[in-house]
Amino acid sequence: MAGAEIEQLIQLLAKLPGLGPRSARRAALHLLKRRESLLDPLTRAMAAAAEHVRACSTCGNLDTRDPCAICTDGRRDGGTICVVEGVADLWAIERTGAFRGRYHVLGGVLSALDGIGPEDLNLGRLVERARGAREIILALGATVDGQTTAHYVAERLAEAGVAVSRLAHGVPVGGELDYLDDGTLTAALKARRPASPA
Amino acid sequence: MAGAEIEQLIQLLAKLPGLGPRSARRAALHLLKRRESLLDPLTRAMAAAAEHVRACSTCGNLDTRDPCAICTDGRRDGGTICVVEGVADLWAIERTGAFRGRYHVLGGVLSALDGIGPEDLNLGRLVERARGAREIILALGATVDGQTTAHYVAERLAEAGVAVSRLAHGVPVGGELDYLDDGTLTAALKARRPASPA
Repeated sequence: MAGAEIEQLIQLLAKLPGLGPRSARRAALHLLKRRESLLDPLTRAMAAAAEHVRACSTCGNLDTRDPCAICTDGRRDGGTICVVEGVADLWAIERTGAFRGRYHVLGGVLSALDGIGPEDLNLGRLVERARGAREIILALGATVDGQTTAHYVAERLAEAGVAVSRLAHGVPVGGELDYLDDGTLTAALKARRPASPA
Repeated sequence: MAGAEIEQLIQLLAKLPGLGPRSARRAALHLLKRRESLLDPLTRAMAAAAEHVRACSTCGNLDTRDPCAICTDGRRDGGTICVVEGVADLWAIERTGAFRGRYHVLGGVLSALDGIGPEDLNLGRLVERARGAREIILALGATVDGQTTAHYVAERLAEAGVAVSRLAHGVPVGGELDYLDDGTLTAALKARRPASPA
């Protein structure tokens, strides 16, 4: 009814998390009404992100540099590595300002349901990195899959002779890391405790 | 923390209706994880929309053609013109399938608070079009501004000697047109009644 270009735009916008078919229509009109202030800049920002942003080959963080700004920041403690499921969790921890070490992004958690096994996670590189580290903090969600993954990673790291800790159980059971408030996340980081492999 | 390109992308996404700062971060990561299936196609769709979509110079609808597909559709009744605040309302009425005439998009409603006066609306063209029409249906929201605008437009059209009707009061008071369910909107269209200018 509104031209193939608009329909196409609406259908693609509806694939964004948080937007359904109705809000995608609103978003499309919002963009078309604000070409110079929003549509054109957002188009350019997306093209620039597609061109320049890549995963850090060390830690898996997204950045325009490889290694990323966190991996190359000499003021950060390279001996402490915080293991997270995804970049959203890394950002959530960075926002607390409570952690000054480095990260390792697994790129998912083990899930029998979704068919995600150890080979699908960025684990080999973590074992390598662990050899040079003092402490690995497992900052995975308090979900069944998150905790299963934490156990598995702790087991894999046992041979590296590195201290492995996990977030304190301030993380609400069943909750996802990215949705936590900064205060709870800070408390959970500070009260982390040693992880036992079994 | 995540490179200027990502920050810029998040800030622009947060300007979309329905997305706040947190959901904009999720959307940015969602896009960066799905470059070929979503980020690139959406970037192209936005560029295509910016290049090809324009307002119809007759009715104000958005389309890739001017005059738009509705204005040039010979199977539609050119004698009945439905006046709406914006393109979202036009789409909402089109979805009901209950209207086979043409439209006129005002581009807003009168609002003392927002400083929107008659000169800001697409009114002159409506008065011209009204001379050749049998009926003008005022499909404006049942808000104070919507009803004020309906009264004003009815007055302006009095001299054109055309029948002016408005949507039946099936529209919930205080509600906006774009949020209505199709059934209510269909009923309101069918039960439309003559408008008195005062």
